[in-house]
Amino acid sequence: MASKKTVKYVYFFGAGKADGKAEMKNLLGGKGANLAEMAGHPALRLPVPPGFTITTDVCTYYYENKKKYPKVLEKQVNTAIKRVEAILGKKFGDANNPLLVSVRSGARKSMPGMMETVLNVGLTKDTISGLIKNTNNERFVYDAYRRLITMYSDVVMEKAAGIEPASDDKGIRKQLEHIMETMKKEKGVKLDTELSGSDLKKLCEAYKAKIKEVLGKAFPDDAYEQLWGGVGAVFASWEGKRAKAYRKIENIPDAWGTAVNVQAMVFGNMGESSATGVAFTRNPATGENGFYGEYLVNAQGEDVVAGIRTPAPINEYSKSGQNQNLVSLEKGMPKLYKELYSIQNRLEKHYKDMQDIEFTIEKEKFFILQCRIGKRTGPAALKMAVDMLKDKFIKKEEAITRVTPAQIDELLHPMLDPVKEKTKTPIAKGLPAGPGAGTGQAVFTANDAEQWAKDGKKVILVREETSPEDVHGMHSAQAILTAKGGMTSHAALVARGWGKCCIVGCGSIHIDTEKKQFTVKDKIIKEGDWITLNGTKGYVYEGKLDLMEPDIESNVDLKFFLNVCDSVRTLGIRTNADTPGDASIARRFGAQGIGLCRTEHMFFDPARIKSMRKMIVAQTVEDRKKALAELLPYQKQDFLGILDAMEDLPCTIRLLDPPLHEFLPQEESKQKELAQDLGISMEKLQGRIAQLHELNPMLGHRGCRLGVTYPEITQMQARAVFEAAAELTKKKKKVYPEVMVPVVGTKAEMKNQYDIIKAIAEDVQKQYGVKLNYTIGTMIEIPRAAITADKIAEVAEFFSFGTNDLTQMTFGYSRDDIGGFLPDYLNRGILPCDPFQSIDREGVGELIAMGIKKGRSTRKNLKVGICGEHGGDPSSIEFCHIVGMNYVSCSPFRVPIARLAAAQAAIKNKK
Amino acid sequence: MASKKTVKYVYFFGAGKADGKAEMKNLLGGKGANLAEMAGHPALRLPVPPGFTITTDVCTYYYENKKKYPKVLEKQVNTAIKRVEAILGKKFGDANNPLLVSVRSGARKSMPGMMETVLNVGLTKDTISGLIKNTNNERFVYDAYRRLITMYSDVVMEKAAGIEPASDDKGIRKQLEHIMETMKKEKGVKLDTELSGSDLKKLCEAYKAKIKEVLGKAFPDDAYEQLWGGVGAVFASWEGKRAKAYRKIENIPDAWGTAVNVQAMVFGNMGESSATGVAFTRNPATGENGFYGEYLVNAQGEDVVAGIRTPAPINEYSKSGQNQNLVSLEKGMPKLYKELYSIQNRLEKHYKDMQDIEFTIEKEKFFILQCRIGKRTGPAALKMAVDMLKDKFIKKEEAITRVTPAQIDELLHPMLDPVKEKTKTPIAKGLPAGPGAGTGQAVFTANDAEQWAKDGKKVILVREETSPEDVHGMHSAQAILTAKGGMTSHAALVARGWGKCCIVGCGSIHIDTEKKQFTVKDKIIKEGDWITLNGTKGYVYEGKLDLMEPDIESNVDLKFFLNVCDSVRTLGIRTNADTPGDASIARRFGAQGIGLCRTEHMFFDPARIKSMRKMIVAQTVEDRKKALAELLPYQKQDFLGILDAMEDLPCTIRLLDPPLHEFLPQEESKQKELAQDLGISMEKLQGRIAQLHELNPMLGHRGCRLGVTYPEITQMQARAVFEAAAELTKKKKKVYPEVMVPVVGTKAEMKNQYDIIKAIAEDVQKQYGVKLNYTIGTMIEIPRAAITADKIAEVAEFFSFGTNDLTQMTFGYSRDDIGGFLPDYLNRGILPCDPFQSIDREGVGELIAMGIKKGRSTRKNLKVGICGEHGGDPSSIEFCHIVGMNYVSCSPFRVPIARLAAAQAAIKNKK
Repeated sequence: MASKKTVKYVYFFGAGKADGKAEMKNLLGGKGANLAEMAGHPALRLPVPPGFTITTDVCTYYYENKKKYPKVLEKQVNTAIKRVEAILGKKFGDANNPLLVSVRSGARKSMPGMMETVLNVGLTKDTISGLIKNTNNERFVYDAYRRLITMYSDVVMEKAAGIEPASDDKGIRKQLEHIMETMKKEKGVKLDTELSGSDLKKLCEAYKAKIKEVLGKAFPDDAYEQLWGGVGAVFASWEGKRAKAYRKIENIPDAWGTAVNVQAMVFGNMGESSATGVAFTRNPATGENGFYGEYLVNAQGEDVVAGIRTPAPINEYSKSGQNQNLVSLEKGMPKLYKELYSIQNRLEKHYKDMQDIEFTIEKEKFFILQCRIGKRTGPAALKMAVDMLKDKFIKKEEAITRVTPAQIDELLHPMLDPVKEKTKTPIAKGLPAGPGAGTGQAVFTANDAEQWAKDGKKVILVREETSPEDVHGMHSAQAILTAKGGMTSHAALVARGWGKCCIVGCGSIHIDTEKKQFTVKDKIIKEGDWITLNGTKGYVYEGKLDLMEPDIESNVDLKFFLNVCDSVRTLGIRTNADTPGDASIARRFGAQGIGLCRTEHMFFDPARIKSMRKMIVAQTVEDRKKALAELLPYQKQDFLGILDAMEDLPCTIRLLDPPLHEFLPQEESKQKELAQDLGISMEKLQGRIAQLHELNPMLGHRGCRLGVTYPEITQMQARAVFEAAAELTKKKKKVYPEVMVPVVGTKAEMKNQYDIIKAIAEDVQKQYGVKLNYTIGTMIEIPRAAITADKIAEVAEFFSFGTNDLTQMTFGYSRDDIGGFLPDYLNRGILPCDPFQSIDREGVGELIAMGIKKGRSTRKNLKVGICGEHGGDPSSIEFCHIVGMNYVSCSPFRVPIARLAAAQAAIKNKK
Repeated sequence: MASKKTVKYVYFFGAGKADGKAEMKNLLGGKGANLAEMAGHPALRLPVPPGFTITTDVCTYYYENKKKYPKVLEKQVNTAIKRVEAILGKKFGDANNPLLVSVRSGARKSMPGMMETVLNVGLTKDTISGLIKNTNNERFVYDAYRRLITMYSDVVMEKAAGIEPASDDKGIRKQLEHIMETMKKEKGVKLDTELSGSDLKKLCEAYKAKIKEVLGKAFPDDAYEQLWGGVGAVFASWEGKRAKAYRKIENIPDAWGTAVNVQAMVFGNMGESSATGVAFTRNPATGENGFYGEYLVNAQGEDVVAGIRTPAPINEYSKSGQNQNLVSLEKGMPKLYKELYSIQNRLEKHYKDMQDIEFTIEKEKFFILQCRIGKRTGPAALKMAVDMLKDKFIKKEEAITRVTPAQIDELLHPMLDPVKEKTKTPIAKGLPAGPGAGTGQAVFTANDAEQWAKDGKKVILVREETSPEDVHGMHSAQAILTAKGGMTSHAALVARGWGKCCIVGCGSIHIDTEKKQFTVKDKIIKEGDWITLNGTKGYVYEGKLDLMEPDIESNVDLKFFLNVCDSVRTLGIRTNADTPGDASIARRFGAQGIGLCRTEHMFFDPARIKSMRKMIVAQTVEDRKKALAELLPYQKQDFLGILDAMEDLPCTIRLLDPPLHEFLPQEESKQKELAQDLGISMEKLQGRIAQLHELNPMLGHRGCRLGVTYPEITQMQARAVFEAAAELTKKKKKVYPEVMVPVVGTKAEMKNQYDIIKAIAEDVQKQYGVKLNYTIGTMIEIPRAAITADKIAEVAEFFSFGTNDLTQMTFGYSRDDIGGFLPDYLNRGILPCDPFQSIDREGVGELIAMGIKKGRSTRKNLKVGICGEHGGDPSSIEFCHIVGMNYVSCSPFRVPIARLAAAQAAIKNKK
């Protein structure tokens, strides 16, 4: 029989030893694991105040056993305390030489400020006198005591009593602060530090009386009772409101639990030879390789954060406008600074990443309290990764994972100055559809936007929602704001395609297009009023806020970094581009071809829309062909431009996709105009419009269904593509058009369209006497297409997953209408995220995987890509990598992000 | 080395011998196989004129080898001709005793009239004189010759010349007929038979001259040339327009090909001792076991069909009003009748099914030319199957396959008297949405329909399309006619549910609701005018046509037959029913439970709609709950009725499915009324309506998405179900409610709704102190639900496939909008059939199979059914059987059809 081994719940660290190490984050939490690493790793053995970590297993046990602890825990804690006592020569709860400890949370992933902390645990009537004797500093001890009482009564006692104050204002903490305020008034002082030791002593007594009165229980005067109270409060706070909300946002599983770190207190507030500070091994704002930090003499950690006193720079490098006249640690305590500098050096070398370090100097003795990977801005992340890679400090795979796609995104868009943004309150909040920022004067029609922009004004186009008829105005605007629509609404799609700032679904604004104004609550924004949008967050501000412009072209670090990414990734990156201009931008960003060139946008140009409409209202094939013949030269011109811009690279051109009614005007006045224009009766026109009306246009007569019923449309488009390709080929340019048939659901549809396109290709090749490099494939966007992909691949020469529509039909969600329930679905956790932003791997993803597998079962080397909005989403890109696609295609401004995401996917999923 | 065996392309039959047999239909075609069987089978050895069949393999070879024949064919044909010659003592092409033959097509499945036939092949200058000598009947010979020339020039020569006449009027046949008409005029006679032998001889010369003139080639005067010309024409006609169109309709593969039957001619037109006729071994109209047929003395087969002379009855039994004074074969040629009677007896015994027999008497010698399974009406099919089964003539599995589901359908609806219908021409044609017939006065609003019906009038409701607001009028009407909509539009669904005649998508009628009339071409039908619909065919007639009412209840044969079906089928049959009345009807038809009880229809009742609307416009949860509380007693009453009607049987109740805006009025006047009614401002109401408006309602906020965002709706409905069940349980009734959550796409949605429903169930059980037999399951109608069925089955206790919506989303087809392209898709063969009528096995079916497999991988005994419209479609029912569903559910009037289809599926797919 196996002997029953006691589970180890408590991990000691300190004095060059540690039971744990950095790799044990799951068990010890991030903080605990790093404390163990710093204390015990042979290469570090840093001066960490000794202590111990109670594991996350205890947290799990606690919640599984009605908030009880494992039996052996108390014994293990006591043993660990003994080790701490032995190192420091102090004793917990001892009247002569008392040990004080802090009790802190520490989850696997940092959850800053979300859980509880109690400091100075162990102060009792007995130990206070001992500590006063030892420190000879009554004021210091009572200051520590009143902090303990405040925290403990708030964090432990109030919660344990089950009292839920109506608001923070009514809580015990506020009531205690009120006592202090009263005392300060009586004493005629302003700062806490101006209160004397005996003042504080009196204060502590008043606090304890108040606690007894309000919470009906005395503040505990026993060190161990305080300790267990603190531990319990930390565990309890794992299920607190704030922590739960934070976990939801950050996708942290509830089951992880938190560890508890109990550590000997050290004090930076024991006089002028004491200090506390925070430092970064490199500059977290710029990424520069300079040691950067701040500190405060005679202070505790919370004082640095509280911002009452301005912290001093740790060295010359850290000096700024605000603090340049303060004495740096380097100058003030050179020996200690040297020690700190050496430690930070060792830490960065050890962890091979920029570290965020908390330190305390107690009476000239240096302690390091915490180290963790430092948070950084996008530019800083990029610079650090590039520098460390160039210095051969890290390998390229590591460098690539050091920068998040969101950080690259930051680099690509104008941003609001974050410092100035902090001083403003948004007047409304919508969905962050197009990242970056925009500022301009509000206008309410596309035409106004265009006109004002021509007059040299910066405008923001504000619309209920946008339609293809607004595109010119959207293009002229700095940014777009709509009251309706979701993340993949027309406005959102177009804006993101252009890298333009855009907020959609901003339901709280009420637009009055006639009056040219919008109201939000009782505020009225009139035409010409300045507003500013933060498209990354979805915030709308009144007035003009300063923007910071990005400079991508000359960002050599970015170029270098993305090239490194390219050397690792296996996924190709293409772009969605409908114009030569967009195509060129995307090429500069590194696109390796066009994955989606939509041809319908081309028809909205005023010069062409009339022919398009003529084609739509045509009653006979002949009339339709005539109108199409008018469109042919325009389309050919479009393709000449795009194919030329994409010379040497493949270019997927999608045939007409939307239902025809989208091209006809909806307003009666415009209809009248059109009827006159086309020389037909209003009755006839409205008849045709009514005929084309659909209850569910998303599931209607569109895509290849149009091509089947009106083969002449497909013929015209195919001819335009191939004639353009032939002309370029004659000029010795290498072009690779890939004609893509949309909305295919059956092999027969694909075959029907394939034959039509093929015939035109043959014809054009004969006519021009050239051989074209072209393929004919399809978009897989109908669930049935994925299900029957083996059949469809018998005809289609390539696949491109149209995941927008595939998601719509697989879920049965209309992108345009999802606003009715999506917020509820996200709030209730029914959906983990908006499936139009990130591919739903379980459902839609399964269909995609099936489609690829079946497609390649028929056509072994079938080229497969994705051209939905998901092609620019990092998690979706990873999925595309996993299922073996050849490329992703995204809007030009997301190409750099996609290059990074593809590289990260390759690294993460290396076999 | 294996010796090279010559392929047998020619199968001889005649004189009690045959190379082939009945089982060789694939190779010899139906006709050829039956000729071989009749000639050669020891139990038959009937007097079949000798001949041979050229196999379908030759047809395949012919099309695969540029219309060439296999080399050995000619030799095999010659050998076979020699055998025929030997039997008859005649010689093909011989001047003294010439053999004439017929050349006929014969595919695997009968394609009546779709391919070519040439008779009297072998008549040339030489053989004509021989034949005249032998028959001593010049007139007969030249009559045969002019028939040969006419057929041959039309069937063989004109086609071979590649001449495609602009219309049938311009063809060679017409031109020859014109010559004959001229001659008849000249001779002053009316009938062909009045022309003399020498007239016909002249006519033949004139024919041949005309042919030479028009087709540039002489009519061949060589027997073998004629023979091969005829054979070639038959093979060529396999790819003729008519044949191809017919194959498409009947789903006959192009690859089958046709055989060619060459058979010695026998003549029923060689005087008064000759005759020809058609007979059925049982009455094909009623199914009665009486020998039934017609014949003509001195005539050829085509004369019987042409209807110039009235055929005589073969026996007393076959006498009718028209022919009762004519001499029957039984009386006129008793010996030959006896022979025929004996043969028909042997044939039916041999084939064990009613046979359709063609016979010819040539100079008192009896020949049988063809036998095949006889076509029959629905009632006849049923009676024959039941009689033969009761007589132990066939086994029950055979009896079940003898009746088609469509024939059962015929029995269930009032029908137009087919004889009278033939005399009328439809004024319009639409989609046959609800089978049967209806006649009544046209009305144009639901209210008028109701009022007129109350006044005792029979009305037909004519609408552009119908909505739930029209339901009361639809119910009052005899039949429904709509200008828009498809086979699964609202009107179609509702009508079929009630077994009511309905025609939809009748695009050629133009409705003017204000004037209360519709026009079709230049005809105007006003309110009150009588019209008649044939819903089985989609025909609209002007005026009042007589209907024949079905009498199902007292149809003992039907009851007996369906019980036989029940003994074989493994699929359960449930019904879709929303009211106790429908439920009772379905029970009488044999339904074993309710598979779909829609709860939303219940809200349209005028007494309830106000509360429903109050609920929808409620701004707070409290207001919504108040309105729902008003609805609760109504819903409970509904469920009390339905559960009671379905005592002892399961009853699947689906929670609210459609989006809320469907319950709000669209017209402004009605909106004003409602606003007043609810005591809210018009602005507020319209605001709510605008808020609920969706671009793609099919993919919008509906089904369980409503239940998630407004849990109080689910709670109210669940409470109504369980309280009703509890009250019935207290009355010792056994009820089995199955609560079905619609539009589920994720496990989390199912869990959310499951928990809500379960809680109410627990609560009600406590409240009433009873234990309820209930389950909670879901409708699988979202592709994602099928894909993640394993997850969903962790919560859902049963599945019911909602194949209407599943088809919509899998194909990306909106049922309401499919009219824009479906006709084109069917015409071009892109879809083999409307996927909303018959399950698309390749795509949607694959998803269903996946859903069942995954669902049962989690929950082994998961009960799975189908409740879409497909549940009443025989092919879809077979599919449901194959994939292992537990039951299908269909509208009450399709329950008998489903019982048969399920039995047939079980037989067809027996392992």
